[in-house]
This record gives sequence, C-alpha cells and structure tokens, in this order.
Amino acid sequence: MEDRIQNQSRPAGEPALDLRGFLTTSAKTAIAVAGAGTLLAAGSAGGRWFGADANEVAFPLGGIGTGTISIGARGNLRDFEIWNEPRKGLVLPYSHFTLWAQEDARPSVTRVLEGRIAPPYAASHGIHPNHGGGLPRFAESRFRGRYPTAELELRDPEIPVEADLLAFTPLIPLDPDESGIPCAIFAWTLRNHTAGRVRATVVGSMLNPAVFSGTDEFGNLRSYPGGPARNRRRADNQARGVFFEGPVVGESELAFGNAAIAAIASEITAKPEWFRGGWYDTLREFWDDLSADGHLTELDPEQVAPQGMVGPEVVNIVPGSVGVPIILEPGESTTVTFIISWYFPNRINGWFTAAPSVPPTTRVRYSTRFANAWEVTRYVARHLPELQAATIDFRDALFESTLPPPVIDAVAGTMPVPRSNTCFWLADGRFFGWEGCFDRGGSCHGNCNHVWAYAQTLAFLFPSLEMDMLRTAFLDEVEPSGKMRFRAESHFGTTFKKRHAAADGQLGSIIRLWRTFLLTGDRGFLAELWPNARKCLDYALATWDTDGDGVLDGEQHNTYDIEFWGPNPLTGVLLLGALRAVEEMALRLDEPATAAQYRGIFERGRVRLDELLWNGEYYEQSLEDVDEHPYQHGRGCLSDQLFGQQLAHVAALGHLLPEEHVGAALDAIVRYNFLAPLGNHANLQRTYAFADESGLLLCSWPRGGRPRLPFVYSDEVWTGVEYHVAAHLIFEGRMEEGLALVAALRARHDGYRRNPWNEVECGHHYARSTASWALIPALTGFHCDVDRQTLWFEPVGNGSSVTFRTLFTCGAGWGVYAQSKHDGETRPVLVVLGGDLDGFTVRVGERAWRIVDGRLE
Amino acid sequence: MEDRIQNQSRPAGEPALDLRGFLTTSAKTAIAVAGAGTLLAAGSAGGRWFGADANEVAFPLGGIGTGTISIGARGNLRDFEIWNEPRKGLVLPYSHFTLWAQEDARPSVTRVLEGRIAPPYAASHGIHPNHGGGLPRFAESRFRGRYPTAELELRDPEIPVEADLLAFTPLIPLDPDESGIPCAIFAWTLRNHTAGRVRATVVGSMLNPAVFSGTDEFGNLRSYPGGPARNRRRADNQARGVFFEGPVVGESELAFGNAAIAAIASEITAKPEWFRGGWYDTLREFWDDLSADGHLTELDPEQVAPQGMVGPEVVNIVPGSVGVPIILEPGESTTVTFIISWYFPNRINGWFTAAPSVPPTTRVRYSTRFANAWEVTRYVARHLPELQAATIDFRDALFESTLPPPVIDAVAGTMPVPRSNTCFWLADGRFFGWEGCFDRGGSCHGNCNHVWAYAQTLAFLFPSLEMDMLRTAFLDEVEPSGKMRFRAESHFGTTFKKRHAAADGQLGSIIRLWRTFLLTGDRGFLAELWPNARKCLDYALATWDTDGDGVLDGEQHNTYDIEFWGPNPLTGVLLLGALRAVEEMALRLDEPATAAQYRGIFERGRVRLDELLWNGEYYEQSLEDVDEHPYQHGRGCLSDQLFGQQLAHVAALGHLLPEEHVGAALDAIVRYNFLAPLGNHANLQRTYAFADESGLLLCSWPRGGRPRLPFVYSDEVWTGVEYHVAAHLIFEGRMEEGLALVAALRARHDGYRRNPWNEVECGHHYARSTASWALIPALTGFHCDVDRQTLWFEPVGNGSSVTFRTLFTCGAGWGVYAQSKHDGETRPVLVVLGGDLDGFTVRVGERAWRIVDGRLE
Repeated sequence: MEDRIQNQSRPAGEPALDLRGFLTTSAKTAIAVAGAGTLLAAGSAGGRWFGADANEVAFPLGGIGTGTISIGARGNLRDFEIWNEPRKGLVLPYSHFTLWAQEDARPSVTRVLEGRIAPPYAASHGIHPNHGGGLPRFAESRFRGRYPTAELELRDPEIPVEADLLAFTPLIPLDPDESGIPCAIFAWTLRNHTAGRVRATVVGSMLNPAVFSGTDEFGNLRSYPGGPARNRRRADNQARGVFFEGPVVGESELAFGNAAIAAIASEITAKPEWFRGGWYDTLREFWDDLSADGHLTELDPEQVAPQGMVGPEVVNIVPGSVGVPIILEPGESTTVTFIISWYFPNRINGWFTAAPSVPPTTRVRYSTRFANAWEVTRYVARHLPELQAATIDFRDALFESTLPPPVIDAVAGTMPVPRSNTCFWLADGRFFGWEGCFDRGGSCHGNCNHVWAYAQTLAFLFPSLEMDMLRTAFLDEVEPSGKMRFRAESHFGTTFKKRHAAADGQLGSIIRLWRTFLLTGDRGFLAELWPNARKCLDYALATWDTDGDGVLDGEQHNTYDIEFWGPNPLTGVLLLGALRAVEEMALRLDEPATAAQYRGIFERGRVRLDELLWNGEYYEQSLEDVDEHPYQHGRGCLSDQLFGQQLAHVAALGHLLPEEHVGAALDAIVRYNFLAPLGNHANLQRTYAFADESGLLLCSWPRGGRPRLPFVYSDEVWTGVEYHVAAHLIFEGRMEEGLALVAALRARHDGYRRNPWNEVECGHHYARSTASWALIPALTGFHCDVDRQTLWFEPVGNGSSVTFRTLFTCGAGWGVYAQSKHDGETRPVLVVLGGDLDGFTVRVGERAWRIVDGRLE
Repeated sequence: MEDRIQNQSRPAGEPALDLRGFLTTSAKTAIAVAGAGTLLAAGSAGGRWFGADANEVAFPLGGIGTGTISIGARGNLRDFEIWNEPRKGLVLPYSHFTLWAQEDARPSVTRVLEGRIAPPYAASHGIHPNHGGGLPRFAESRFRGRYPTAELELRDPEIPVEADLLAFTPLIPLDPDESGIPCAIFAWTLRNHTAGRVRATVVGSMLNPAVFSGTDEFGNLRSYPGGPARNRRRADNQARGVFFEGPVVGESELAFGNAAIAAIASEITAKPEWFRGGWYDTLREFWDDLSADGHLTELDPEQVAPQGMVGPEVVNIVPGSVGVPIILEPGESTTVTFIISWYFPNRINGWFTAAPSVPPTTRVRYSTRFANAWEVTRYVARHLPELQAATIDFRDALFESTLPPPVIDAVAGTMPVPRSNTCFWLADGRFFGWEGCFDRGGSCHGNCNHVWAYAQTLAFLFPSLEMDMLRTAFLDEVEPSGKMRFRAESHFGTTFKKRHAAADGQLGSIIRLWRTFLLTGDRGFLAELWPNARKCLDYALATWDTDGDGVLDGEQHNTYDIEFWGPNPLTGVLLLGALRAVEEMALRLDEPATAAQYRGIFERGRVRLDELLWNGEYYEQSLEDVDEHPYQHGRGCLSDQLFGQQLAHVAALGHLLPEEHVGAALDAIVRYNFLAPLGNHANLQRTYAFADESGLLLCSWPRGGRPRLPFVYSDEVWTGVEYHVAAHLIFEGRMEEGLALVAALRARHDGYRRNPWNEVECGHHYARSTASWALIPALTGFHCDVDRQTLWFEPVGNGSSVTFRTLFTCGAGWGVYAQSKHDGETRPVLVVLGGDLDGFTVRVGERAWRIVDGRLE
C-alpha cells in the first residue's frame, strides 16, 4: 500500500486499491489483502509525489476567509477563487512564473516554470495564448503536497539550472489571523548544474485580477466594463513588484479590490504593464523581450499596437511582471521568493443575496488587519521567517509523525476545508460555513448543523472559530421552543423556506459543544450557551420522543434530507450522546440535580434503544410498514447507526450502548457496507465511488426488507461517513478495518480520479469530510480537558516497541507528543510548538507528568 | 507505426509519435525513424481500436444537416447536437441501452451496455443519477470507428452474453438525401457464451428530447417551461417503440419537434413514461422493474411519488424505454436493431439572428421528406437493408483499400464535417457552412471562402452540395465590381461589418469551381457561374495587381485574418491557378480568345513571380520593410506558399511554376516547418500541437528576417495546411514526407489527446481539415472529366508489384478501382457501387478501358 501511495504516475489500468478478494471472503481476509494491517508501523508518509499528468491535483493556497489559488501537479496556477466565492476552473490568464537562463557562452533558454501540459487537448479553439499553452516548459516535473506546503521539482537537461518550488500560505494552529492572510508565497530555488557560470532571471507574472471579467467565446480577454487596469511598480525595504488596482470604485462595492505580485529582492527587473497589442502581441512582446537578454523593458503604459483586430475596448486589461536576475556559479543555488497577495474586502451581505434592510455588501476579516494588498505583501515580507518556520513546524509535526500514511494523507487532504470558499469570515469576527462549494457559489447554506456535526478539523485547529459557529447555532438560531433552525439565518436577516429542525443536527450540536468546551476550557462560553443547549435537548425529547421512553420516534428530519419515522439508531444514539454531554455540562456548571435528571433519561433510553433496535447483528430502524413513509432504512444496516457513539468518543463521553453491541455493529457495517471493490454495486443515486474503487456504502439490506423507495442517499459513499466509521473502528480496537477504510478512500483521491485536497459530497471541500481529524484522537488516545489543564495520550499499539510520535492540538497549545519503550517503560516526550501549556498535566496510562517551559518535567 | 495506431490503450508516458531524431538529423532520416516509409504497403488500416479510457473519442452519428449524437469509446451516447446547433458536452440524461440477462437457474444480471467510466471523476456533486454513473457496466470494452460505422465490443465474465454493437447513420456518396436522415441506428448482437439457455432483454432508453431544457446546478432536470412531455407507445409493421413529443407549439417555432426510439421487433416490452418520482426515484423504479424479471411495466402516466423534494415543476420531463426480449440457446446469437430518430425542423433564419424582414425561423432539408420522427423511423425500418448495405459498401471501399492506414484514418476522421453542425441544409436545398463550431454555436459564419477553399471532401462525396456553395459564392456574393464578399450574407438578408474580399478566398473559389465542374460535368452550372467567375478574376487583377505584372502586390486580406502587402507566394500562386482555371473554363465554353488572354497573363505572371520571390530555397514575400505593416511573413518559409499549386493539381491544371522550384520549396517546408517533435518550439499564439507531438508550423524564419510582429497564426499548426502540404508532397513524388506529415497529425488525434473524428482549428469539425481528401487523388492519380466521360488513375507506387485498391468518387458515380501487376502488365478492375458510369473511359497510363454495366470491358 505504501509503495502504491507513493507512486509518481498511475500505472495504466491498475485499480485504485486491490481489495477484490473481499466479496468472496471475510472482511478480515480482505483487509489483509489490502495490506492495511501494515500501515500503522509504516512511519512517515512523506506525502505522495505526482507526475505532471495528475490533472486533478489542485492544492489550494490561501488563508482562512481569503479564498484560494490552487497549484496543479505541473506547478500551474489554477482555480483562482480570490473574489470571495468559488470559481473552480477559472485560470487567470498570463499568470505563471518564467525562467530565463544562460550558461556562459551558450544560447539562452526561456521556459515557463511548469511541467508540460498533459492530455486531453480538446478545446474548440486550441489552447489560447492567454494560457501560454505553446510556451516551452520543463521536460520533467514532480509535485508533492504536504498541506499546508506544496513542493515542485523541475528538471530539464537542456536548461542549465534545476528549479525547486516551495509554495504555501502560512498556517499556524490556534491562530486564525496568521492563518488567514490573503497571500500565496512561492520560494524558487535554482541550482546551477553545469560547469559554467549561469545568469538567470525568475519572473513572476499575473493578470491584474482587479479588472478581470472573463474571456469571450474565442478565449480573448473581455473588456473590463468598469474602466482600465492600473498597474504600478512598487517597492519596499523587503519587497519589490507590481501593485494592481482596478478603476476607482466605491470601497464598499463588490468590484473594489487590488492585488500585488512582488519579489523579496533588492534588485529586480519589471514590466508593470505588458504591451497593449492587438491579437496575441501582448504575449509576444513579453516573451521576446525577456528572451532577448533576461531583462524586462518597461513600456509606455499608453502604448498600443499600431494595428490589430482586438480593439481598444479590451486593452484596459494587462498583466504585470516582476523578475529577479541572479548569477549562479557552478553547483551554486539561490532561493528567490515571490509573494502574490490580494485584497477583495467585500462580499455579499447574505448567503445568496443581501436582505433589503441591510447594506448589499459586508467586509471580510482580513480587511481589519490590512488596508490593501501591498500592505499584505509588506507584512508577509517582513514576517516571512516566523510565518514560514511556524508553518513548517506544524507541517512536520503531522508529516513526521508515526501516524499511518493514509491517515496523515487524509487529515492533511481535508484540512483545506476551513481555508476554502466553503467557509467565510467577516470583519466582525463571525465565521460561517456552507456545506461545500459548487464550481461557482456556495453549496447549501447556513452552517448546516447536520453536516457540520461530523466536522472535527476546525475545532481542533482553530477552536475560536468553532466556538463562533456554536454561538451562532445556540445563541442566534434557537427559537423559544428550543427548536434550533438547522440552517443559520439570523445574522444576515434572511428567512429561509425550510425552518424546521434536524434531529441529528440539533443533537449533534450539543455533543459538539461539549467537545469544544473540553478543547478550550472556556467556562464563560459554556455558561453563555448552556441555557439554550439544555433547551434544545428538552425540545428534542418533547418533540421527537412521543412516548417518553428515551428513544426518539417522531418525524425526524436528518442529514439525508428526508425524515426518518419511528425509533432508529441514527437519532437514537445521538440522543444518548447529547444526554451525556448535557449531564457533563451540568456537572461542570455545578448543577448536579440537572445532571442526574438527564442521566436518568440516558439510562432509560440506552436500555430501551438496545431492546427496540438490536437485531443480533446491528441496530436497525423499527417500523411496522417500512413503506408507509418513503425514504426509510428499516432493517437496513446503516453506516451512520453509531455516529453519535463516535462523537461521544471524541468528546470523551464513553460508551452509550453495550460495548459488545457497538463492536458487533461496527463489524456488521464493515462486513455488509464496505465493498472492496464496489464492482457491480448498483448505485441509483449520486456516484462518488464505484467500479474498481473501494468504499463504504451508506446502507445495505443484508437481512432483506429494503423499502420500495429507500432513503435517497442509501446507495452512496460519503467520505465523511467513512472517516467517522474508520475512527470509530479504531476507537473500538478494530485498527485494521479502520485503516482499510481510510486507505481505500484516499486511494480514490489519487490525483487522476479526484483531487487529493478536495473531498466532494454535495459540493467541493465538503465540511463533512473533516470528520477525518477524529482519526488522530482514535489512534493516539489524545483527549484533553483544558478547563482542568489535563491532556491524555494512549496510543493504539502502545504495547509494541515501536517509537510513536504525533501532532496534538488543543485550545491552549499545540505541539508534538512522542514516546518510546525502553526496558518495558514508556518514556514520553512532549514539545509545545505554539500556545502555552505550562502547568498542564499529561497523563499516559496510570502515569502523569507536568509541562514546564514547554517540555515534560 | 501500424502497431502503434492499432493499440487499444495508450501506453503510459509514451509520446504520440517518436520522431525525436528529427531535430538533429535530416528530414529523410527522421521520416525513416517515423516508419512512415513502410505505410504505403501496409494494407488495410482496419481502423483503430480504443479502450474504455479513451475519453476524447466522440464518433458522430447523424446525417447531413440533421445534427449528431456522438458515441464515445465506452459506447456511451454523448454530445447530443440534434437541435440544429452545436451542443458539445451535452449528454441527454437517462439515454443509454441496458441489458437484462439470465442464464437458466442462475441469478439475473442488469447492466448498462457500456464500458466502465474512466477518470477523472471530478464533479462538484459526484455523478448525478440522471447519468447513471453508479449503474454497473461491462468490465471490458473496446471501440472502433470506421466512419461512417462504429463498432463496440462488450465482454464480462459475469454476464452470460457477449454484446457487440454496430452503430451508424446511412452515408451514400452522391446521395445527400439518403445521407441526411435524422437518425442513428444501433444493431446489438448478443451471443450466449454459456452452456445454458439465456433469456435476455435489450432495452433502449431516452429522455424526451423535445422537452429537455437542461439541469439545475445540482444536476437535477429543470422543468420544461413550455409544458409536459408526451411520450406515446407507437408501433408499425417493422418498428415498435416510443414517440416523444413536447407540448403543442406552433410548427414554425424553434421549440417544435419530436423524436422516437424504436426497435425492429415483433414483440417488445416498453415503459413509454418512466416513474414521475421525487428525488432519484425515477431511475430506481426503472432499474428495479427491469431487474425483477427482464420486463418493463407500463405506468399510469400521471403517477407521481407520494412525497419527494423534487416537486411537480420538473415532472413534466420523463424518459421512455423500449426493450426486446430474446431467448438464446448456448452459442446462439441474435441481432436486435434500434433506431433513434429526431425531428427538429426549424432553425434560426440567419447566421446569428434573423433579419427583421424575414420570419424568425426557417426549415431544414429533412422536413421536406418527413412529417415527424416516427415517419423517419418507419422509413429507416423499411429501407434498412439497402441503406445499411450501401453504407457498408462505401465504408469497405475506403477501409479495405490499400491506401496507407494513416491516410484512411485521416480521410474518414474528417469526413464528419459535412454531417456536423459546421454545415446546415435548408428546405429550399441551400447548403451552408460555418468554418467550424464552438461548443455551442457556429464558429465564424458565411461559407467563409478562404477557409472552404481548402476543403475537398464535400466536392468529392456530395458534389451537388459543393455546387450549391459555389452558386452562393458566385451568384449571390459577387458585387458588380467583381468583388466577392468572403462571407456569404445575401441569403439571410443580413449585412456584416466586414464586407471586403479575401484575395486567397476569391481566387481559390475560382479553382474550386473548375475542380467541381470536372467532377460533375455540369455545363449548365459552369455557364451560369462563368460570367461572375471571370469578373472575380478581373477584380483581383485590377485591385491587387497594382502594377499589372501578373503578380499581386496590393493590400490582400487572407485566411490568416490579416492583410498581406506586396508580392507574396500565397496569393501569387493562387492567382496563377485561377488564371489557368479560367483559361480552361473559357476553352470549355468555346471562348478561345478569352482563354488566350488569361493564358498570356498567366505566362507573364509565373515568370515574374519566380523572379520576384524565389530565394534559391523557397518562395518568400517581397517587402522592403517587413515591419512597415504588422503581420507579414517576409523572408519566412510559409507552409501555404504553394497552396494554389496543390489546388491546381487536384483540379488537373498542371504545374504553375518551375517543377524543380516547386519540389525544392516543398522540401524546404518540410525541412524548416515540420518539427518532430515540436519540443521547445515557442508558440505565442493558439496551440493545436506541441511538446512531444509532431506537426507542421505555418511559418518559420530559417534565413532570419522575422518581423517584429509576424502574422498572427505563424507559430501555429493547422491540420488543413498539413493535409494540403502532405498531398502536395505526394503529388510531387515525395511520398515518405507526405505520409510522415499525415501520420504525425493523426497520432495527435489518438482518443486521449483529441477526438479522432474532430479536427479543431477555429472551432470543432473545422472545414479546412477536409483538405484531407486530396490525399486520395495524390496517391491514386485519380482525376476525372465527367463532361468528357473520362476517369484517370495513376497510383503512386504503381511500379511495384503490390496489389492496389482504392475508393473513387466523381459526380456521376463511385466505386472501387483496383489493379495488380502480372508478368509486367497492369490489370485494372473497376466496380461501380453507385451512380452510372457506363460509357465512361478509364485511362491508366497509356492504356484505356470502357465501363460497361458497371465493370471494365
């Protein structure tokens, strides 16, 4: 498995993961076939390398609430999504890095700093010169993303230098502001591999993004209706480059904004405005100018080609370039760093449109720190050493851990979600999330509580933002009855058509609140949300538990976008988890009587649920006539049946149901729902995995009784569900099964089939996929109670002699925890890399240590 | 080379054509490396087989002026373009064939009759159930297109039958009506490969295309605003199936139309209207119903799911299905034939919009033969044996010829152009062509004469339609001055902004007229167009030959969309060809004095042009200051420099310039412009070929003197230019060079990089690409003078002992010509497969035969 994951290029015809034996043998055997059992001890993942033909690779650069620019496997910049909405597929014309190089006494070469474009080449008019398809590139390239950093290696025997790129946007756990800078950093390292002296220039070019308004049907740039681009040369102590502004418009207009491309260099060559020529002369003048001598000539900004078909209506849009000339002796290498920054501070003041009563736009968070893109550039240039060091510390804490490679791959691959356009962050500090993204526009609005209930990454990385989402849920969206609107609407003053509650989302939010309190230890926060949390639970009991037996049985809207009727494990187990969470909150807030009250309901409910739904193999839905209402699961084996138990484990709430039933039900889920490969499974719904791929179905009917119209996603495979089931399997001691699920899932995201940094469900960068982070607590036994200044670790596989090392995060600090066994004794090491954990107790098994000066005493 | 072309799957990382030695060796050596020298004797091409992963394969089914439905390499129906405009990428939901099969006493299987879907799988919401991504398919498939027929083979060890498909739309040379039926025929042959008896049902399904109005952003069907679908079961003596109508609208409205899917079978099972359910229940009901017992249940058309998120606003759109149940004994096979037909008789009455003075829509040709789609179905079902036989006769005449495989591949690969949406055909018989197609909409209007001057396929296959285009050019578009508007505008009563003449297009049209007269022998046609043909030539001489020396030197608009100034080979040689063509026309029309007059100009001009432009290697443009006007080529080596000579060869006009200069210039074109591979060639314009691919640049500057802004397509590679240069090389005895160009070009269209049935330039199915047909006269020495009832053959390679066999077409008939050598004597065989050539003389070298009863006497 490890070999396969580290393959550079996809071997022709090879299936994603060879688990073909599974259908005819037992689950255990199939998992052995998959090689998943060896993954735990496999050491560092190191990240997968991708060849230039991995067309689906799109590694997002960009911060929280800033939008992103992605980098493809060839090093190509793609998917410019910096205007506060998704824009999948939008490639900003003329935006790439170029190399000019000349070895002494030899002809010079000019190349785009990318690998060659891979098929298909199917456009109706060829590749437009705007996208420089016909420009020569490097013969060999490979790409590795270890989120949050990306690396590219370019090689070509005809070029006198090797070129390596490190690209990233700072990401520092617990620090959303430093992780929310609207920039992308590109550090190019050139090495002279010849025996002669090499003169070289690295040039960064970008179209002015403040005036870009698309292309016509031929691919030619469309005129920007608002007026001309204003590209100006700017310089600072550290950074020199081009500042891009559009025409002067009101500062609250959506069109308002600017950008910059700059190099950290004392000497540059620049062409702030390219030639305003007819036809394709714009590119020709740039290329010929650079090719002539490695320097760029500044042009009269009003210069227009003497004649050309493309008239003055479009010459208001031009790219700008900044280049850094260097000299390299044989064997010498030099790093040249570029910063692309952007500043589009306004977004629509609503989920879809602004309400009539409010201003049409609102400001994004980064506008409170910076006045324009050049200020961003200046800040990043000045603080680059610290920002880069902390980002790489974090990356290495994860990638140099001993977590199984597919787990590292999964956690890092889904980590972009909070920094994608799935989420946004306003100037007043409010943080919101869609479920995911359409290619253009958010996909399903309103912090949807039944989807976000699965999410873990945000809470563990940026708990202050998770706290904000919970404030929205419990303070803004709970009606006096205790009903929580499952899509937040209050902040923007809009009213959606569907204002009902989702049973799973409402109960999941309560467990989420307890998990977040454990991570942050913020008693004020807990106290503020507590009354409504309790009210939400009471509403659930009053509304959906019609017979008062502690098991929900009413009409229960849920994450399958339909209603379950009658007792069922999804909402039933979530209720048990929510009862336990509320009990713990009550205890922490010194309300022992309240705690006891809910404990009582919990104890009744857990027995009753087990009686009603346990069928000897797993928990099923109890219905007399499964077809009385459409879209039920009835006797089907639901992969989500123990979702509430998994949430409870992450929130340290213990077992909600008999442990042996929990384990057996998980075994049944793997046995019946994990198809390796999916093969001839007939999926009549949306397809996220199929054929030679392996995956976990949402439901199956091994004991018969399939409804005529089963619930509308039952045939599908969702990564968010696979992750929580995988984590849960590991929590329950079923390591190999859990890892097999993760390995299968990530093998589907191989850069050819799908983007490794984008797991899709109802949209790109789907929030549910960040259930992946639960794999870390499952594998490390990490949990915390920051209020009580305690961290726990209990790595799975602790009994073996292998060295163990992991990243950990909590609201007060983050770092690396490691341990090894010597002479039968476990020796822990802990290094705090951010935050302050001094005085905290670290518990490993029966033993405890104290943190002093960021280390274990 | 042959092995490579017949590869099923692309070997990972292998370049398209390995001609890498070229840049460092001579052209001759490189061509040897390419293996092109062995192609002539390689025998039947047999067509290339493609694996299911050849995602770019889109083989168009459909007739002249009918639009098309394409079939992909998996057998998937794609690119539904049946509404009188291009719709690349539009896949009609629910439209596929399905198999149910059961071997006695074993479980049944249900499968889509397609190969499995290949990566990428990158959509934001997975694959929508409308497109059945999650339905099981055949494990193995391969596809071959030998235009006009496509073949698919499906195999799966888990399925008790093998399934082979033959799909086509009738194509019969010289018969545009029978080649213009709005239908696609699918003949499925099932073979029982088990030892038991097999019951099977083949089901064809299609969404009602008369009400399809796209999908919403989730992929759900959008409501059709005009009203509900009307799907009705219909039967005939031969055909039984479903007739699809939309709501009742006026018969001249664009929305008016209908369609049908039918099987030629006496017993069917049908579901004319699928379940009108919520969510994804429509597909579920169909799949479960068929899977149950291989039969389809007819539903109450008003039936709606009891509850569902998808409301009544979209349930006015439903698919319909017809299935044929069969029983197969072990080893037995049966063929089941389906016909999809469509009837959308109205198109916009103009190139872009209708002029205010005319009705907004006009009728298409097929509406004069058929009243609705069911009539189409009935006609096709009744005449299927003859239509199929003639189509296969034609296919085999080409594919079983001894022409080199890449040439067969090229001629067949570009043959769809006249049957694509690049062309359209009106009820009054008028035939028009765009240059090509955007994904949606025509790409550059008005029978553009400088592009269509390169086209040969239409004239050789359907000369009556070529005659119509020439009537438009010479009767409608020539102004009193003799200026021919290079974009036709008269028919639709519109006036375009650019109404000037194109020097190359105007002169090329004159040669085209002579070529078409030779093919058709229609003296009335020639006499009708003759006055304006002569006027056009006089205009050219008066306008562009400012000094009267027989060499054009004025401001000459041309196919590069710019103006050449001064003497240049492109227009200069075309003038010589046009002078010769007019001379021949005058002679044929008994105007010897007129003929002598133009002969005189020709003789002066050919000497003068050679004096002015021959540089010892090739013909260049003569300019004092190459940068005085932008976009010239000056001293560059232009691949089009002898375009007029190639046209003259096809029109049997002989050499226009000294033969040794012509040959040397062609050698220079190959030497300087054919890059194998293109490698690091910097193309600053549109990219149609690059990197590891080989191709012919439009221009290069081996002797220096490149203008600061060379003409705007000079870096590009156009297949239409490659074809005429390749044909010309063969005409001039440079066989290996010519075939190397064709092999390189077709290797770029390998089903992974680009569609083998769609050569793109400024649009899909670009008219210039049909220059390919010139390869047949070049290789066979075929030309004709139908007026004088004579055909000539002089195959290249005639001196060798190999058997030779080719397709031939002329306006009076078509068939196969073959010859072999025995004892030093050439023995010809000719079979007339269509038309009437009795009484014609066939000349081969010095000898002549007469055709009697469709055979050589």
